[in-house]
Amino acid sequence: MAQLEVHDLAQAVIDRMADCKEPRLKEVMSALVKHVHAFVQEVQLTPEEWMGTIEFLTAAGKMCDEKRQEFILLSDTLGVSMAVVGIEQAKGAAALKANPPKLAPTEATVLGPFFWEGAPELELGADITGVSSGTPAYYHGCVTDTAGKPVANCTLDVWSGDGDGFYDLQKGADAPMALRARFHTDANGNYRFWSIRPAYYPVPDDGPVGGMLRRMGRHPNRPGHMHTMLSAPGHERLITHLFVSDSPYLDSDAVFGVRNSLIVNFEPHPAGKAPDGRVMTQPYHVAHYDFRLVPSAA
Amino acid sequence: MAQLEVHDLAQAVIDRMADCKEPRLKEVMSALVKHVHAFVQEVQLTPEEWMGTIEFLTAAGKMCDEKRQEFILLSDTLGVSMAVVGIEQAKGAAALKANPPKLAPTEATVLGPFFWEGAPELELGADITGVSSGTPAYYHGCVTDTAGKPVANCTLDVWSGDGDGFYDLQKGADAPMALRARFHTDANGNYRFWSIRPAYYPVPDDGPVGGMLRRMGRHPNRPGHMHTMLSAPGHERLITHLFVSDSPYLDSDAVFGVRNSLIVNFEPHPAGKAPDGRVMTQPYHVAHYDFRLVPSAA
Repeated sequence: MAQLEVHDLAQAVIDRMADCKEPRLKEVMSALVKHVHAFVQEVQLTPEEWMGTIEFLTAAGKMCDEKRQEFILLSDTLGVSMAVVGIEQAKGAAALKANPPKLAPTEATVLGPFFWEGAPELELGADITGVSSGTPAYYHGCVTDTAGKPVANCTLDVWSGDGDGFYDLQKGADAPMALRARFHTDANGNYRFWSIRPAYYPVPDDGPVGGMLRRMGRHPNRPGHMHTMLSAPGHERLITHLFVSDSPYLDSDAVFGVRNSLIVNFEPHPAGKAPDGRVMTQPYHVAHYDFRLVPSAA
Repeated sequence: MAQLEVHDLAQAVIDRMADCKEPRLKEVMSALVKHVHAFVQEVQLTPEEWMGTIEFLTAAGKMCDEKRQEFILLSDTLGVSMAVVGIEQAKGAAALKANPPKLAPTEATVLGPFFWEGAPELELGADITGVSSGTPAYYHGCVTDTAGKPVANCTLDVWSGDGDGFYDLQKGADAPMALRARFHTDANGNYRFWSIRPAYYPVPDDGPVGGMLRRMGRHPNRPGHMHTMLSAPGHERLITHLFVSDSPYLDSDAVFGVRNSLIVNFEPHPAGKAPDGRVMTQPYHVAHYDFRLVPSAA
């Protein structure tokens, strides 16, 4: 029988997939095996480091529950999530090459671990601040396609942390939803709502990923941002953020999610009459952003 | 602020370690990030595949407990554990190059997930079969260093599954230890004990790794083997197996652990007087193997 020498191991694992019935799985696993073995050989991984890796993955698994996803956090903080977002968007851009759009589509960024299905569907113009802390902000703009045609009745999910940087999901098992809503654009593709100007915050760093970041000499912070997800029939779904232009950490987002085109000026206004006629008794901000959706591949 | 383009992401993650205080961690994480990103780009990983990976890792984490280690199983079945073993042993061989040993050191193989600390310390010649199923086998040989000098009082841990391929650890929370012991070589470096001839068996395949193997078109089986771990002051610890020469799956071990030099002929004998004078009322096997330990690096 054939001796398996160490330099043959990756190929031996790949060859063992001769009976695999899923071509794409075979392609992905072959590349994974090749790269994992190349990594192990390149760094000459020691048994102690190997065991440390096993213990790290095990601890990360133990940390996961309905409201905490340590493996997404790991992927996010190593830039892998953003790489997948970038690949997906590049595919869309390549599909448009034959017929370049008039307007550049809005750039995507990470979903993050804090989306919570089932937020209330509200009328345009609603204020979703509730009892949350933070400076009020008025968000408005238009959703069009890349030809500039308004997208009416586009579903717009929005969510963010509070003025102290905490999401509802981080506030204990019984904490109610906060700072989340689903809106629908009007006949002209316009949207508007009130919320707060989101603060920068640390990703959850009390688990193995937090320990990894500290050992890497990294901070866990993300610049302030409003999460958005836009869905409309005939258009590709868009998951992105609006980043607050004067937030700390814009140039060192812990999850590498910042795109220049997503940085929005949150105009400061003194107390008084807001653009929608509301009379504000305290200072507020106005954030204007127009989204451009890519038409679905036929 | 600098836009982060997708092709810069791996480097951006690496650059973020500027303040890392652990040079080796920085080296390992840099290589890991580089290879993970190269993998993601090479296969153009889709968001669905990314989410499938997150779910796989999460399920693997949930499966782990004191007696089950799904991440070691993942490492084993992708050949990674054996790669780490090979690197460690190659380092030992490189250290010996200036002064090549008279005898080749015994090859190492994987520890596996079934070592259980605290097995009984027994006198040489003891029978550890207990109530376990399987054909009796007499194991004997000598432990020397690579110059041929006997290693007296060498600690020899042995463990295996039963005649049906099951380890004690797989038999429920309250199952007692079985088919495990710790021996010590005599003044001449000799060892001897009775156990069974181990059967081939599947690695635990009722979890995510089992599902992965099925999708890869692979069987989960390991050829029959007796686990051994040898420790003696002044020598490198050796973790290895003795493989049963006529076992199925020697050429397709699910964890890629077989080395030709570890395949042992289990001589069949009819009932009668065994080499140690014991009178056997049923057929039995005799396995002879001499171990060669590498002297510790001073």
